[in-house]
Amino acid sequence: MKQKIYIIKIGGALIDDEKLLNEFLVQFSEIKEKKILIHGGGKLATTLADKLGITQQLINGRRITDKDTLDIVTMVYAGRINKNIVAKLQQKNCNAIGFSGADANIIQAEKRIHPEIDFGFVGDINPQSINKKLVSELVSLNLIPVFSAITHDKKGNLLNTNADTIASVMAQALSEMYDVELLYCFDKEGVLEDVDDPDSIIKNVSEKSFSILKETGKLHKGILPKLENALAAIKNNVNKVFLIKETELKNHIENHHAGTEICLS
Amino acid sequence: MKQKIYIIKIGGALIDDEKLLNEFLVQFSEIKEKKILIHGGGKLATTLADKLGITQQLINGRRITDKDTLDIVTMVYAGRINKNIVAKLQQKNCNAIGFSGADANIIQAEKRIHPEIDFGFVGDINPQSINKKLVSELVSLNLIPVFSAITHDKKGNLLNTNADTIASVMAQALSEMYDVELLYCFDKEGVLEDVDDPDSIIKNVSEKSFSILKETGKLHKGILPKLENALAAIKNNVNKVFLIKETELKNHIENHHAGTEICLS
Repeated sequence: MKQKIYIIKIGGALIDDEKLLNEFLVQFSEIKEKKILIHGGGKLATTLADKLGITQQLINGRRITDKDTLDIVTMVYAGRINKNIVAKLQQKNCNAIGFSGADANIIQAEKRIHPEIDFGFVGDINPQSINKKLVSELVSLNLIPVFSAITHDKKGNLLNTNADTIASVMAQALSEMYDVELLYCFDKEGVLEDVDDPDSIIKNVSEKSFSILKETGKLHKGILPKLENALAAIKNNVNKVFLIKETELKNHIENHHAGTEICLS
Repeated sequence: MKQKIYIIKIGGALIDDEKLLNEFLVQFSEIKEKKILIHGGGKLATTLADKLGITQQLINGRRITDKDTLDIVTMVYAGRINKNIVAKLQQKNCNAIGFSGADANIIQAEKRIHPEIDFGFVGDINPQSINKKLVSELVSLNLIPVFSAITHDKKGNLLNTNADTIASVMAQALSEMYDVELLYCFDKEGVLEDVDDPDSIIKNVSEKSFSILKETGKLHKGILPKLENALAAIKNNVNKVFLIKETELKNHIENHHAGTEICLS
């Protein structure tokens, strides 16, 4: 039987709220099984860019990453956020070790090529590149990897990369060796039929029901790429995939029933 | 016989010069023996603080690290500089892995307590804390650790720490398991009798000759703490310690005669 590992992704709203983040990290540190944390960015990068007078350009919700913006996200994601999370976990006796994808060449990506838009230093992950052997060696040393969403192209460039996709690709890569449960933690109770009604959780989403939900136009736009990443994971040997509210982590681990479960069919 | 390892410290002027840094990293990547890189900060942190209107206070050359300044040095040292060095080394097929002292609890420090000056989030390393077992495990996986000068107190706080001291303490800790050669690389040819004359290299410095040199007041002030760290290393089982010019790394490794050697007597 394969060993269980949780791959847990946290996002912006949580990272921006020090108290909430700390409560989450307490719950995370108490998980007894093997675990990996992957974090996104939050508003800190935008705030810093504003202070420095560096204009941020968003196209369809994607940040255009020119050289100045790359420096900012590298500083904020791989520096400030990553190292503060690691220090807070160490305080809780959780032997965290922070990474960008460049470290130990764990995650390679390619600079996004688009016919019309120059995204700048934005990376699309090469799923074959995941250094799963090293990740499992680190995990077997009882280390808890904490990944920021910065990768590299092995040509000397850092790249700004989607954290939801990193979580999905990492989960897929490790599913060969582990019984992987992938948890997308965010500020909603799960996938909601009505984004303003926390009681409207959709308990299960499959590829088929996702298509229908998308067609009805009911789903909150921001959830679509997250669901696509979640579906890619369940289709590629990840054992379990859930979208849960950040405050429900402990409850989910202990009672296995929070949020929305992503299913094959 | 113990395995050889180089512990190499680089500093500000090199980090501020992209071309020079890249040339150094080529030389570093070509070292065949085991190796660890430790880097200081450079002017980037001061520049960023200036742009953000955060006043930097220096007392006797030591940066007072209030909360805002800690955020800045964490972003610049552990984020921007560390991850760019790692990406550049990966490009050169050198399997670098970046760390702060918080990662995997490798280096613990204590917040500096001073009767008159509040240094803020400045850390003095606890030499006993160095997680040498893990460092040697990583090294034996053919990884090349790259340390920024940010440590932690295991109470959830990051701390700004002197990179020369990290290099010395790391060299001492690893000397139990390795034949350690510690190299302080900087922008001078070595310890100079006349700081403006590159031909005035002092070939050897021992504790005794250091006292005499200090008394004469000839030495450039900035070199004193570096020499104190270098002497602490040679007194505590580090096999060899040199201060060399950054551009002389390859020459030193191949011909063993660049710069100033620190001696026991």
